[in-house]
Amino acid sequence: MRIDIITLFPDIFFGPLDESIVGRAREKGLVDVETVDLRNYTKDQRGTVDDKPYGGGPGMLMKPEPLFKAVEDLHDNDTVVILTSPQGEPFRQEHAFELASMPHLMFICGHYEGVDERVRSKLVDREYSIGDYVLTSGNLAAMVMTDAIVRLLPGALGSSESAIDESFSSGLLEYPQYTRPPEFRGMVVPEVLLSGDHGKIAEWRQQQSEIRTRARRPDLWYKKPNK
Amino acid sequence: MRIDIITLFPDIFFGPLDESIVGRAREKGLVDVETVDLRNYTKDQRGTVDDKPYGGGPGMLMKPEPLFKAVEDLHDNDTVVILTSPQGEPFRQEHAFELASMPHLMFICGHYEGVDERVRSKLVDREYSIGDYVLTSGNLAAMVMTDAIVRLLPGALGSSESAIDESFSSGLLEYPQYTRPPEFRGMVVPEVLLSGDHGKIAEWRQQQSEIRTRARRPDLWYKKPNK
Repeated sequence: MRIDIITLFPDIFFGPLDESIVGRAREKGLVDVETVDLRNYTKDQRGTVDDKPYGGGPGMLMKPEPLFKAVEDLHDNDTVVILTSPQGEPFRQEHAFELASMPHLMFICGHYEGVDERVRSKLVDREYSIGDYVLTSGNLAAMVMTDAIVRLLPGALGSSESAIDESFSSGLLEYPQYTRPPEFRGMVVPEVLLSGDHGKIAEWRQQQSEIRTRARRPDLWYKKPNK
Repeated sequence: MRIDIITLFPDIFFGPLDESIVGRAREKGLVDVETVDLRNYTKDQRGTVDDKPYGGGPGMLMKPEPLFKAVEDLHDNDTVVILTSPQGEPFRQEHAFELASMPHLMFICGHYEGVDERVRSKLVDREYSIGDYVLTSGNLAAMVMTDAIVRLLPGALGSSESAIDESFSSGLLEYPQYTRPPEFRGMVVPEVLLSGDHGKIAEWRQQQSEIRTRARRPDLWYKKPNK
């Protein structure tokens, strides 16, 4: 898999793309992640990428020309172009699974007040928002999506790690977990977890997941087909 | 404002906390962001921070002792301790506004399969999820929340930037925006935006925001008190 990230701040990606599971997946050759500096696709010496919005209003917009040039330069037949934007569809685990099977993803990291609408209507295949909050730029959104996707690539997780048994994959929030010591400052681990009875443990965990999901995320709970 | 980020991967934060608006806010002294290596709070030479979950299951959990030590070491009377976790409340712009008024935030970045439940029940004031997808760790989630919060601090945004007039702050998605050229590859800017009639422009934008929100985010649209 190849992932190109078109950005105004390539340096911001150094830490997140080099550490942890994404860094390991790159070392193993499972994914080739490249950051692409949008300023390389500008004509003028100052590398102008933004301009004022028509009709007035605060802030600057990303101009169409450099983005069209960059995308067309890096585009293959099988490329999926993704715009990070607060106006996009909310990104969810099912999208991560789907995108993990694609050969080539290209992220356009929105910046300033966003992109010229013609970029959205002509260049972009998917538009995702990572959540209902406002970020400085789309760079963090591209990192988040890259992380969620890359960890699903076969071989990305170590043998002690698990891609599946987690919140959102099952449609339920995960149950409470405990590790040693069995008592810590007067707080004890629930007896059932120490019982060695795998049937009872599974039942308790399912119950706890359901209680937690109903209490914290009724929106997820009432979407489930088999409650 | 002070933000402490307790993490197993302090290096991952170098890019994101040094660039862009967060970097500028730190330089201006608006916020002091520190990453804290959890391994500094372990007793053994190997810096063990994780252990197997009671009751079985894949992966490792973050042990209680180092997290209790770290939080208690850095805690003040007015500290708000935030756990990043898929089981948390969905983080939204209203939380960013609220947290931007706090003097001291402390993030615990979940890792592996998560944290021992006693950390959650005893140490943590808020538990947030940044979205319904699974990440390698809570590091990116802490970055995202830090970014959303810091940009709201008075003085963080430049004069040409705007904290308010954006998706989620108004409860509507933003309208389409255009910049020069007025025609690009046959695609033209809507005439009203070139008209100079500010009343009409405001009306068009409001309409477009409503159309877009209804079409893309019915969940937001039907929550609005005055549609």
